Amino acid sequence: MLGNNQNGQGLLVVLSAPSGCGKDTVLALLEKCMPIRRSISMTTRPIRPGEQDGVDYYFVDEPYFQRMLQEDKILEYTRYAGNYYGTPRTAVDEWLHTGETVVLKIEVEGGANVRRLYPDSVSIFLVPPGMAVLEDRLRRRSSESEEEIQSRMTIARSEMKHAPQYDYIVVNDRLEDAVENIRGIIQAEKHKTCRSANLLSEVINNAES
Amino acid sequence: MLGNNQNGQGLLVVLSAPSGCGKDTVLALLEKCMPIRRSISMTTRPIRPGEQDGVDYYFVDEPYFQRMLQEDKILEYTRYAGNYYGTPRTAVDEWLHTGETVVLKIEVEGGANVRRLYPDSVSIFLVPPGMAVLEDRLRRRSSESEEEIQSRMTIARSEMKHAPQYDYIVVNDRLEDAVENIRGIIQAEKHKTCRSANLLSEVINNAES
Repeated sequence: MLGNNQNGQGLLVVLSAPSGCGKDTVLALLEKCMPIRRSISMTTRPIRPGEQDGVDYYFVDEPYFQRMLQEDKILEYTRYAGNYYGTPRTAVDEWLHTGETVVLKIEVEGGANVRRLYPDSVSIFLVPPGMAVLEDRLRRRSSESEEEIQSRMTIARSEMKHAPQYDYIVVNDRLEDAVENIRGIIQAEKHKTCRSANLLSEVINNAES
Repeated sequence: MLGNNQNGQGLLVVLSAPSGCGKDTVLALLEKCMPIRRSISMTTRPIRPGEQDGVDYYFVDEPYFQRMLQEDKILEYTRYAGNYYGTPRTAVDEWLHTGETVVLKIEVEGGANVRRLYPDSVSIFLVPPGMAVLEDRLRRRSSESEEEIQSRMTIARSEMKHAPQYDYIVVNDRLEDAVENIRGIIQAEKHKTCRSANLLSEVINNAES
């Protein structure tokens, strides 16, 4: 029977969004409705109220981050608002090798790095339904000063301009819709002919036998 | 608010499959779970038991088909197993213009024609879980002689070889899964950045305002 193992190689999904757009909530719900592996990024920025080490990020200090870099244990990294953000290498390649779907939650700069390293990856850009909504969400999070909020908004505006470089754009208006759309995109990508080399050769062999 | 009208231009979906693979059943279910427009093909082949004129195909005679061709009312056509199969032009462009999702159920030759005419279209190839299953399904349809079944199997084998030219491959093993997968592919394609010119400019303008 065909299609039991469409491809031995997993799917790498890059998910980016301006901060405050709700990508953590989206990802948490996505995890509940389909089997994905989340790669947790490592950062030197301070932990915010409500965040958990090893869940939202691995929160480390700069010397530790530098040592990881020297030991080539960081897949890609970027410096953003004065802090380092990096993707630990270990798990990602292993998961992909065993055919799993790996989701990287990553800043726009990091997204571009990953696309270069993994041209076969799929990139999704989550956008807020409007900048006013984004500002409101940042304000309600209330972990930051007005100055920090304005600085985040400035960064968000410039991040939004990276949208055209992504394969898909999903508007995070209703949360459940955004999750369902991302789930659908991942599901669909798995059926791409270019990702179905094994299935394709089975189809052809079947037809010839 | 963003995303209410992601693109003014509709999505053209080409669905092909070897005969007997169940594409009519799949399409009938797909119509029930998402808004699509089905373009009904026109053919000169005789109607089979259980088929309905204007539902499965428009069944016409050869002089009528030739007149349609002369009047440029056929988008594309192909001759297959001694009969003509064509796509009437009228509805397709109109539906696409109003932003609808149009599904063309079409033979592999016709599929290649449509992809040339509409490079922006999405093509899906539905395959049976195995050639034995396909033969069994053709036999159970029992509208055809053994000779006809063997001739259809030969054609099916050669049709399967067109699979690599399609964007997506979906295995029609469990019917509901095949329908759900096709629905997901269509949904995902609507979120492609390259199809979201309007959304993208809204995003950028929003970020600049």
